Amino acid sequence: MKALVLVAHGSRRKQSNEEVVELAIKLKQHCNNEYDMVHAGFLELASPSIPEGIQNCIDAGATQVTVLPYFLNSGRHVVEDIPNEVNQARANNPKSDIKIAQHLGASELMMDLLIRSASIVR
Amino acid sequence: MKALVLVAHGSRRKQSNEEVVELAIKLKQHCNNEYDMVHAGFLELASPSIPEGIQNCIDAGATQVTVLPYFLNSGRHVVEDIPNEVNQARANNPKSDIKIAQHLGASELMMDLLIRSASIVR
Repeated sequence: MKALVLVAHGSRRKQSNEEVVELAIKLKQHCNNEYDMVHAGFLELASPSIPEGIQNCIDAGATQVTVLPYFLNSGRHVVEDIPNEVNQARANNPKSDIKIAQHLGASELMMDLLIRSASIVR
Repeated sequence: MKALVLVAHGSRRKQSNEEVVELAIKLKQHCNNEYDMVHAGFLELASPSIPEGIQNCIDAGATQVTVLPYFLNSGRHVVEDIPNEVNQARANNPKSDIKIAQHLGASELMMDLLIRSASIVR
């Protein structure tokens, strides 16, 4: 079984964290054939943590887990902190295949998204 | 003349701010026909500020300025802080047409971006 863990920074603002959980649910609906489950995980300030989010998937039967950083910039969080958290999960689950996908900001589709967003003004 | 101001949070990490400036330059290349100029602006911790970024465009001849929030979540920054900064620029430039576009996270293309990003693993 394949799982996706959408990883966000986490916020003191409860609503921001709920937005990420809702996005994970919506993402599951959109990639039904690709992933058997989509969970959220947070680097800081909210739960589940990244290792917990990954563990939730593995406990539910996932053998392949892809961690998707919901981050725009390739800062320390993307380059160091998320890989460190993922390594914890790998150590706990040596038989599972746990990968990190490219962070959102690196996508080739970003230009289209920016140009489209700019055209929708209030 | 039409201008776009790509607004990011701003970081203590110089490289993150430079990424935003580079993204603004790249965006200009991709929307050459749509906008005559694309500048960056920062809410905090980096310059130019949002009013300065808007002013740079107006001083360079822009009569229409669209502010594009490079933010994933609809938090306080998107809902309150950026509009407050934009209102400062409006007060300073009553004849200019200054609009705020939807923030990146609200885009209908976000699902595609997430699914595509998830497929590119390290």
